[in-house]
Amino acid sequence: MKALDDTVNLLSRLPGIGKKTASRMAFYILRSQHDFAEALADSIRQLKTLVHFCPECGAYTESDPCPICVSPLRDRSTICVVEQPQDVLTIEASQEFHGLYHVLGGLIAPLDGIGPDALTLDLLQKRVQVLKVKELIIATNPTVEGDTTALYIKKLFVEYPLTVSRLATGIPFGGDLEYADRITLAHSFRGRMVL
Amino acid sequence: MKALDDTVNLLSRLPGIGKKTASRMAFYILRSQHDFAEALADSIRQLKTLVHFCPECGAYTESDPCPICVSPLRDRSTICVVEQPQDVLTIEASQEFHGLYHVLGGLIAPLDGIGPDALTLDLLQKRVQVLKVKELIIATNPTVEGDTTALYIKKLFVEYPLTVSRLATGIPFGGDLEYADRITLAHSFRGRMVL
Repeated sequence: MKALDDTVNLLSRLPGIGKKTASRMAFYILRSQHDFAEALADSIRQLKTLVHFCPECGAYTESDPCPICVSPLRDRSTICVVEQPQDVLTIEASQEFHGLYHVLGGLIAPLDGIGPDALTLDLLQKRVQVLKVKELIIATNPTVEGDTTALYIKKLFVEYPLTVSRLATGIPFGGDLEYADRITLAHSFRGRMVL
Repeated sequence: MKALDDTVNLLSRLPGIGKKTASRMAFYILRSQHDFAEALADSIRQLKTLVHFCPECGAYTESDPCPICVSPLRDRSTICVVEQPQDVLTIEASQEFHGLYHVLGGLIAPLDGIGPDALTLDLLQKRVQVLKVKELIIATNPTVEGDTTALYIKKLFVEYPLTVSRLATGIPFGGDLEYADRITLAHSFRGRMVL
């Protein structure tokens, strides 16, 4: 059945979805009320139509600029620098950060041919000057590329009157020393805090 | 973001999809080319529009009657009786059965208030007479409801000149005696075959 095969093929291109799960999803859609399929199809189309990148910070938004960039409640002197737009949503969910964001759109990866020019660093420098930013919090992933990018940004802003910080790496809360890998443990020693 | 939340909520209604997987799926759609979102939305809508139940056997089909019911290559004297439309696709994938199908649309479950009248048994009786069926293979799941339904159908056709059979229950191919549950093991003894 072509209609069924088409849906299963497209669904199985989604991350973490194999042929079997895609089939179960398609059968669920077939069994469900007609308005569920309509609503799902509409929402997927609208997702790509309505959601785009904020011209200021690069986060996903439905309005220009995004609600965070225009909010009078956010601390405009602190910028959290992230790799991808969805990182903004992850950090917002933690309710721990109240400044602005800046999405790099990638990480420096010389082996993949991605240099600093591929990232939105020019825009970041401009925003830092306009907003008179006092602290840049680098929230790239604790990987080789994430660390490389963090160090590059640190150097880029070494002449500026601001602090460049980096999210702590260590044993996850609720975790166990026994199961922490060597590098995470090393990081948690280096980043130890005075109580 | 409403557009994102809407899609995540709808996707997480699909079986086996939690909020986290739904979010990852939505982010993938956001990152992907526009035509992927279009194609996925279209295919979901078309799935419900094009695919319906075969008026003869009750299987999913895009044409009336379904390709199996009209195929001159199928043995019209054998009907495999299944619970749901997707069971037809599962059995077709095994390439083991070459007769026709009949979808019951459920199983007899007195505790849930589902009696024989809720199933398509009238239609099955009519088809058995018209097609001069010689064997009914009951392929309901090996559960209490599946067994009850199989026995009911056996009684329903006791006066008819046909054989009513049931798929074998036993240790799955590649399985291990040690891990077979007691009831499966009992079934595999009762259903043992002479070599």
